[in-house]
Amino acid sequence: MSGLTLHPMKEVRVIVSGEQRAFVTEVLDRVQASGYTIIGNVSGKGHHGVREAHFMFSEQESLVMIMAVVPETKVEPILAGLRPLFERHSGVMFVSDVAVSRREYFGTQAGS
Amino acid sequence: MSGLTLHPMKEVRVIVSGEQRAFVTEVLDRVQASGYTIIGNVSGKGHHGVREAHFMFSEQESLVMIMAVVPETKVEPILAGLRPLFERHSGVMFVSDVAVSRREYFGTQAGS
Amino acid sequence: MSGLTLHPMKEVRVIVSGEQRAFVTEVLDRVQASGYTIIGNVSGKGHHGVREAHFMFSEQESLVMIMAVVPETKVEPILAGLRPLFERHSGVMFVSDVAVSRREYFGTQAGS
Repeated sequence: MSGLTLHPMKEVRVIVSGEQRAFVTEVLDRVQASGYTIIGNVSGKGHHGVREAHFMFSEQESLVMIMAVVPETKVEPILAGLRPLFERHSGVMFVSDVAVSRREYFGTQAGS
Repeated sequence: MSGLTLHPMKEVRVIVSGEQRAFVTEVLDRVQASGYTIIGNVSGKGHHGVREAHFMFSEQESLVMIMAVVPETKVEPILAGLRPLFERHSGVMFVSDVAVSRREYFGTQAGS
Repeated sequence: MSGLTLHPMKEVRVIVSGEQRAFVTEVLDRVQASGYTIIGNVSGKGHHGVREAHFMFSEQESLVMIMAVVPETKVEPILAGLRPLFERHSGVMFVSDVAVSRREYFGTQAGS
């Protein structure tokens, strides 16, 4: 039965230039995110800041979207780990709610 | 500290034939969505309507998924802007909750 | 007006080796999911189980992400249908909330 139970987790998605991919996956490894998925072949435009008025990405730049599903306790360490990257480079990070069917693959609140 | 704060936003994803990509990004530009991400290399099947009983996409068609993160106030203008496309062409649009770490890149409720 | 109404649904995303793609889409067809979107060009690492301590995916493996938006009643049949795959092969499945603008393309609770 446990295979059919869904457990609440957080999905973190980071969109950065392909060159910054290793920085992001190293942060995920460091916080012991149990895995991640990378979507290549991504392009983007924006996001120019309302205050900063510069374009983050040009349409030509090669981007990657890196997705990881983690317990909620890991979201803030990931944000903190990515902060040096976002201070120097373009990139965005989204966090959303997700449920997973196999909690043991994503780490548990207690075990993390 | 503000870099670690998460702000609630809406994520809009549109899946359309590659030929309709410019129509969608023009709608996003018109409502001043601050940016978008496009995933190519997407294929799909369905969605045949329960009532309309036709296939929206064939498996051969080249599709794109266009994602934008916007304040909630922009969701309805985007839907309204896409309506002429959906009346004539295949396509689907999903809206979901997402949190972002850099609100200034996505526009604010007050400023939009 | 109905084109602007958003209806709550569930988004199911499955990440598996490209070889298992047909297994997943057959499950989706069997439960009469009205359609699905497949993102290729996906790579991944993990997810090693906290208990099982094996890697699910190597970084070399070619993965696909298969997305379907379905009424909530179809989530458990999809999970049940995928179980034989997850018992023998690597893979993860996420479920999240999503709203759609065209409910008739995704099947209704009553009609499913």
